[in-house]
Amino acid sequence: MEIVLGIDIGGTTTTLGFTDREGKMWAETVIPTLAEQHITAYLPRLYEAVEALYAPLKAEHTWVATGIGVPNGNYFKGTVENPPNLQWGGVIPLCDLFEKQYGLPAFLTNDANAAAIGEMKFGVAQGMTDFVILTLGTGLGSGIVVNGELVYGHTGFAGELGHSTANYEGRHCGCGKRGCLETYVSVTGIRRTVSKLLADSLVHSTLREVSQKDLTGEMITNAALQGDKIALEAFEYTGQIFGRKLAEFAVFTSPEAFILFGGLARAKELLLQPTLKHMEANMFGAFHGTVKVLFSALQDKNAAVLGASGLAWHELEKRKRKM
Amino acid sequence: MEIVLGIDIGGTTTTLGFTDREGKMWAETVIPTLAEQHITAYLPRLYEAVEALYAPLKAEHTWVATGIGVPNGNYFKGTVENPPNLQWGGVIPLCDLFEKQYGLPAFLTNDANAAAIGEMKFGVAQGMTDFVILTLGTGLGSGIVVNGELVYGHTGFAGELGHSTANYEGRHCGCGKRGCLETYVSVTGIRRTVSKLLADSLVHSTLREVSQKDLTGEMITNAALQGDKIALEAFEYTGQIFGRKLAEFAVFTSPEAFILFGGLARAKELLLQPTLKHMEANMFGAFHGTVKVLFSALQDKNAAVLGASGLAWHELEKRKRKM
Repeated sequence: MEIVLGIDIGGTTTTLGFTDREGKMWAETVIPTLAEQHITAYLPRLYEAVEALYAPLKAEHTWVATGIGVPNGNYFKGTVENPPNLQWGGVIPLCDLFEKQYGLPAFLTNDANAAAIGEMKFGVAQGMTDFVILTLGTGLGSGIVVNGELVYGHTGFAGELGHSTANYEGRHCGCGKRGCLETYVSVTGIRRTVSKLLADSLVHSTLREVSQKDLTGEMITNAALQGDKIALEAFEYTGQIFGRKLAEFAVFTSPEAFILFGGLARAKELLLQPTLKHMEANMFGAFHGTVKVLFSALQDKNAAVLGASGLAWHELEKRKRKM
Repeated sequence: MEIVLGIDIGGTTTTLGFTDREGKMWAETVIPTLAEQHITAYLPRLYEAVEALYAPLKAEHTWVATGIGVPNGNYFKGTVENPPNLQWGGVIPLCDLFEKQYGLPAFLTNDANAAAIGEMKFGVAQGMTDFVILTLGTGLGSGIVVNGELVYGHTGFAGELGHSTANYEGRHCGCGKRGCLETYVSVTGIRRTVSKLLADSLVHSTLREVSQKDLTGEMITNAALQGDKIALEAFEYTGQIFGRKLAEFAVFTSPEAFILFGGLARAKELLLQPTLKHMEANMFGAFHGTVKVLFSALQDKNAAVLGASGLAWHELEKRKRKM
């Protein structure tokens, strides 16, 4: 059976797996990324893991392509361009390197775009042609699908909704701007919101006992589930900012759904209820009731690897259609 | 030679013309729309104008399709749905009516989308696959092109950037929301800005002598060109709000260009300079210097009819590719 290699490169770990056309994972493994290493030290370790993973599959399967999801991945060029969390050094032609190493086509995109393709091929977006995925982790990543295709735009970097502006005089963002959406709506963002609420209010909260650094999304969720007023208010505040911006995103591409993914999405209803309320309250007339907000169905499967694999299958199909 | 009929239906006038594949206009005419008439009174007048226009062309040309640009046009259904400025009554299946009347394929989209197609086929967007057109008239309309195709989205109404939010506590908008971009960046918007500045400031201005109702975009432009401080400040204020939002739109689809069209675009450099300054100041790092702001090249030709014609040619080509 034909299989593809999907690789998800994160700042901490690299996950790789071989997947068939239906999204079944035939083998999977994880290696540490060791982000401080140069690419020349990282690649041999990655190749070794790939080959060890493929060896027992070789007899019955044929590896036909590779898909890679990586921060700052440039789909058009197949390069990784100065990823903020990896000390790889400059612009790395990762697709070329993989194609040379294994003589197979390789495709690459950023991690949020890979997640979008994963949802479209194997998740809740199956059958949808217009949707937006939002990955709510350390930052806020996004992948936009229009007419059944990922939007890459003129630069290859379209879909940076985390850096749309929620407040021009707002929080400082790592990108140098102020008030970017991801400074509010992400795990890091809601942590900052808790700090703000702990400053503003006098109400009792168990969250006063934890440092901002030690605070996790899970802790905020658990506190909210136990009725902690600061934690509940943090979700309300996050949902207000998020819902307003989702209403705004809707007038852009009129998506069928926003699909939420990543750490903060694990809060489920706590995040969803205020978000929906503020999204509908701010929605342009013609779009009322037209946009769903869903959670990724791949959350607990290996979504990132499925997304990277999905990219490879998607690109192979596109090539076939063109032939 | 094959020609198509392009029709632009506005609240005041309906313009129609026969155009060839290169955008050459072979005949053109204008009739009053008489917006207060029901569709059953409007259509016979339109048909009559169409037939009078086609009669002298018949010998040498073949009419092959019709393209229509109309406010609240639904591309998917070929219908016009409760246009705010036309008393046509309900949902009008305009494409079906035209196809039945003349036995030729008919296509329809809203006026801003038609303008986008016109730019792509005959204007400054020739060769571009990713751009956004913004029509700055009474309101702010927009058409978004991604991967060389108009973005219609799940509802068919994608690209309502005039109703993205510039200020949640801002100006009342005709749509019922507050602070929509078009309440600032449009001919109507800059008029409201002049009123605001006349209230806030004490400086001398010839614009104090004109009522808000009588004030035109041209008057504000002329005053600015003569150094009127209120008029200049109005363009600065408009450009700040516009530039900030353009920077935000850029992170969505990463367009090659924003193309400005319509009454307010006639102010040219007066609008462009502050817009560019604030767009770049608010641009996300990866997009700095990647987005042009251009003026429509069709401004003084009959852009709307060219756009409607372009739609017909574009759809005919799509049908051919599918066959």
